[in-house]
Amino acid sequence: MSDIEPVLGAIDLDLEASIGRWMDLLRIPSVSTDPANKADCRRAAQWLVDELAGLGFESQLHDTAGHPMVTAHAGAAAKGSRVLFYGHYDVQPADPLDKWTSPPFEPVRRKDSDGVERIYARGAADDKGQLLTFVEAARAWVKVSGHLPVDVTMLFEGEEECGSPNLVPFLERNREMLSNDVALVCDTNMWNASTPAITTRLRGLVHDEVTIVGPSIDLHSGHYGGAAWNPIRILARVLAAVHDDQGRVTIPGFYDGVEDLPQQIAEQWAKLDFSERDFLGEIGLEAPAGEAGRSVLEQLWARPTAEFNGIYGGYSGPGTKTVIPSRASAKITFRLVGKQDPARIRDSFREFVQARLPKGITVEFSKAGGGSPAIEVAEDSPYLASAADALAEEFGRPTVLMGAGGSIPVVRSFKDLLGMDSLLVGFSLNDDAIHSPNEKYNLSSFHHGIRSWARILDGLAG
Amino acid sequence: MSDIEPVLGAIDLDLEASIGRWMDLLRIPSVSTDPANKADCRRAAQWLVDELAGLGFESQLHDTAGHPMVTAHAGAAAKGSRVLFYGHYDVQPADPLDKWTSPPFEPVRRKDSDGVERIYARGAADDKGQLLTFVEAARAWVKVSGHLPVDVTMLFEGEEECGSPNLVPFLERNREMLSNDVALVCDTNMWNASTPAITTRLRGLVHDEVTIVGPSIDLHSGHYGGAAWNPIRILARVLAAVHDDQGRVTIPGFYDGVEDLPQQIAEQWAKLDFSERDFLGEIGLEAPAGEAGRSVLEQLWARPTAEFNGIYGGYSGPGTKTVIPSRASAKITFRLVGKQDPARIRDSFREFVQARLPKGITVEFSKAGGGSPAIEVAEDSPYLASAADALAEEFGRPTVLMGAGGSIPVVRSFKDLLGMDSLLVGFSLNDDAIHSPNEKYNLSSFHHGIRSWARILDGLAG
Repeated sequence: MSDIEPVLGAIDLDLEASIGRWMDLLRIPSVSTDPANKADCRRAAQWLVDELAGLGFESQLHDTAGHPMVTAHAGAAAKGSRVLFYGHYDVQPADPLDKWTSPPFEPVRRKDSDGVERIYARGAADDKGQLLTFVEAARAWVKVSGHLPVDVTMLFEGEEECGSPNLVPFLERNREMLSNDVALVCDTNMWNASTPAITTRLRGLVHDEVTIVGPSIDLHSGHYGGAAWNPIRILARVLAAVHDDQGRVTIPGFYDGVEDLPQQIAEQWAKLDFSERDFLGEIGLEAPAGEAGRSVLEQLWARPTAEFNGIYGGYSGPGTKTVIPSRASAKITFRLVGKQDPARIRDSFREFVQARLPKGITVEFSKAGGGSPAIEVAEDSPYLASAADALAEEFGRPTVLMGAGGSIPVVRSFKDLLGMDSLLVGFSLNDDAIHSPNEKYNLSSFHHGIRSWARILDGLAG
Repeated sequence: MSDIEPVLGAIDLDLEASIGRWMDLLRIPSVSTDPANKADCRRAAQWLVDELAGLGFESQLHDTAGHPMVTAHAGAAAKGSRVLFYGHYDVQPADPLDKWTSPPFEPVRRKDSDGVERIYARGAADDKGQLLTFVEAARAWVKVSGHLPVDVTMLFEGEEECGSPNLVPFLERNREMLSNDVALVCDTNMWNASTPAITTRLRGLVHDEVTIVGPSIDLHSGHYGGAAWNPIRILARVLAAVHDDQGRVTIPGFYDGVEDLPQQIAEQWAKLDFSERDFLGEIGLEAPAGEAGRSVLEQLWARPTAEFNGIYGGYSGPGTKTVIPSRASAKITFRLVGKQDPARIRDSFREFVQARLPKGITVEFSKAGGGSPAIEVAEDSPYLASAADALAEEFGRPTVLMGAGGSIPVVRSFKDLLGMDSLLVGFSLNDDAIHSPNEKYNLSSFHHGIRSWARILDGLAG
């Protein structure tokens, strides 16, 4: 391990310039889902290529069927670990614009009434602020010692916010360049503003849409009501049967591959500073909805779900319309944990629905396939131990190993296509309003983030 | 009873002229719901005023806050029954226009491939064709005998298709003119093209809208799924509980005031030429949805329903969105029979929902009130017996006493405000496509209809 202090000193000295570069990148409206911003996405990619070339990286812009990929590589002075850093330069659309207190692509630096300094802009956190923590750490290393402590490849995607349609083909075509010892992904949260975290569990995801088809046409509910099957009634009955009174999912085989939380992790989570009451209170709820007898953290991080994301059928305008609709639909997603198999879950759900249809009633399901299983990072990995130590050193507190209820599909692709585990380290906070108006990132997240990556790279050098 | 034959002969001789007048009225696009047709509605009202004045009626156009009412009165030569005839001159909007095979307000007379002659136009049946059967019968009586066999008041409304907002105040202001011995309403069906019917049962109606309010904002279903209550899940559970496995409504007290069908009526309905299989097959269904052990006709005419007319919440666009919505809503109508009380049904439903809410979850209901109880016309009324005989005479077949699943609120108003029973006689057929493109009325409905009213008026003269 080399002497980290001069590198940290350089980071502190250069902080204002780092913030300037961050604001430059935030000014580029790289909204990947809107064709109107196609040139902006390319501009953001080129900005990264230029910045990294300036640091002595071999950087490159790769055209794809969609927005470009950026790669950059710099070797280390000595042989050692080889890491792939992943981030994305595209951002979510900014609407609703009228809810922003300042224009989304004109970043504002502000000390709020709580005394905390923040940058407000679309992408401030997700993922421009987060990815730059790593770039700025690399900059400090190069400036102080002329090279990086480990061999680093960077990969920046421009389509993360619109489903990454070109990521898998790109990974497959560039397997050699991108396969490294470990992937570092900076797209997750800290435990809280003063406590670092590594995310070790991500839930998997399967989605489906179910449409109950009843009468061949919409009917007058007076002339036909009582005798004609109403698809909303059937749909409600199917959906109501998905959970039992204890909050468990009743679909046969649903819990195959789900294991109880290891005692050690349960104890670790029990010790976390987490108030179920506050967590639920912030979203206007009083009691948890998940399986009885399981903690809220367990419900979020270690238990699968069946969630209804939308329902529609019949008349939804003002007033009343006496109609029996021909069709009624619901959108459903399952979050998976452990070894749950997405394809089997979907099949089993569809059988579950079929078994509940009255005679003569039919059902249609989504034509879209796909789905991803859950991910668990081995908590005994040496990379994880090293990163956890580095973070603890920076923040002066133990690093929390936490779960996340959501899914980050790139982690699955790194594992399946490149045979590489990921280390999920991020500095975002729950209140960063990513995907919402007035997105922000705390200056302390940015500053600690840069210093943390400098330490993590140092640690990985061994 | 006078000699009816000359009157029937005059009707037959004058049929082509009657059809011409019918087509004149159909050419006026009196769409009551569209402000663009305000002058057309007035024109249709004035057309009726003029026609009736020409027959020697004291006819009058009455301005209201909306479209005008038309009244007309002609006394009889001798003292006897006094009847009020009700119809409406307004029509439904014609859209979707591209589904019409001829313009909706340019009536077309056509002999179809089944050999049946029909008039196609918006309002051909509902209600211009139907109401003119009575006007033309009155014309024949006046022409042949110089007067009507009974005292007749006519009332034509121009807002039936948009909720009759000005009907009740008009009835209240004109109680003396409009209160008669019995009301004749021509807005219902025959049993089939060769079998006359009188409708003796109409279901009542209560509507409500229920909105389950869960989290205070829409949530990410990954970050919160499992722990956060999903209002769609709660709504599905509430709606699924409304019916039991036998198709009975489980809301406490729902069946208070509902009586089993009298043996005599059950036997009468069992003898009707009605195929459950054909009725359901025409709407793409194989089995009935109503209470087990009850016939389809009983389910439609004599049993109450809880019907879900619409459901909505969360994301309903293409693809998937991983959201837990804050709210989910359903629109529900109850059709009532017997002595079910609309207000009590609504209260009981609301208690039923409240009792099923998890801790911390709230519910909102529709602010609109209202509702109407069911109507049953006493089958032993002398007016009904007389009309049934007249119809049987005209068609050479017994008259069917049937129910209707829908509601005709004016019948309730006549009873409650004017203390008058109604006799529901109509000549429309199930396939007349009222409210739909290519609305039609068979010439035989029109011709038999005129002759039937001539006979009924004769019969009511005693």
